[in-house]
Amino acid sequence: MPRKPGVGRACRFCGIVAGTEPAFVVFRDELSVAFLDYRPLALGHVLLVPVAHYATLEALPDEVAAGLAIRIKRISAAVIAAMDADGSFVGLNNRISQSVPHVHFHIVPRKKGDGLFAHRMIWKRVAYRDDSHRSETAEKITRALQPSPWGRTGLI
Amino acid sequence: MPRKPGVGRACRFCGIVAGTEPAFVVFRDELSVAFLDYRPLALGHVLLVPVAHYATLEALPDEVAAGLAIRIKRISAAVIAAMDADGSFVGLNNRISQSVPHVHFHIVPRKKGDGLFAHRMIWKRVAYRDDSHRSETAEKITRALQPSPWGRTGLI
Repeated sequence: MPRKPGVGRACRFCGIVAGTEPAFVVFRDELSVAFLDYRPLALGHVLLVPVAHYATLEALPDEVAAGLAIRIKRISAAVIAAMDADGSFVGLNNRISQSVPHVHFHIVPRKKGDGLFAHRMIWKRVAYRDDSHRSETAEKITRALQPSPWGRTGLI
Repeated sequence: MPRKPGVGRACRFCGIVAGTEPAFVVFRDELSVAFLDYRPLALGHVLLVPVAHYATLEALPDEVAAGLAIRIKRISAAVIAAMDADGSFVGLNNRISQSVPHVHFHIVPRKKGDGLFAHRMIWKRVAYRDDSHRSETAEKITRALQPSPWGRTGLI
């Protein structure tokens, strides 16, 4: 039974995990399920979701984040092999541009010259004013990381 | 001393890790270093790299991939807090569109209406012919994942 991420609305990805929503599943284990994105950026585009419902990246327990990373690595290699690709793109939209509020990593096969970024996903850059703007920005992020944000998991 | 990813060319990110290349570092520990992307998609755009030189996602040992995921989660939260953002984008270009052959995750703050995907990174979709095309594609990826691709790390 899909868990509810909000009032009155079932989570589509929980439905896929539970098998009550159709999907082309490529992998499933106790931690995660991977299936074809229904509207792919490239054929073979896979979404990897945790079995348990977590809406955001921040909500993922460390051990789930760690386990997903290992699966991303292997699924990326499989997608590249299966689709005869040259590389891959891994992406996560956290809160903004996140179409389903159940954490999902995109794993997209890439081919040389596929134009995914050149024409479809242009990485247009913005500018810092100068190095002191860069330095201030870096310091803000550093401060937001204090105190030491991990060390309690024993994973590393 | 930056390690060489190829003949005659030093790795810029190994240089940043070693401190011989300038960068606005926001975090560093025994596993990883995070610093401002010099040409950001948004102010506060951070790159997270492993200290050791691995060219591709496939080359990352499981424990490094796992450790990076935990750091991505925390750095994303810090970037959101520091930049007063509403969410984040996490991305990895593996081999294709990978400007530096040293694995690096992009962690980009997102704000509502920033247009990052709407105007700059349009997720233009492609199409499967039909469900049997989807099914064949899913099966190819599933086969490429055989035999069971993990279980040896003990992490999960």
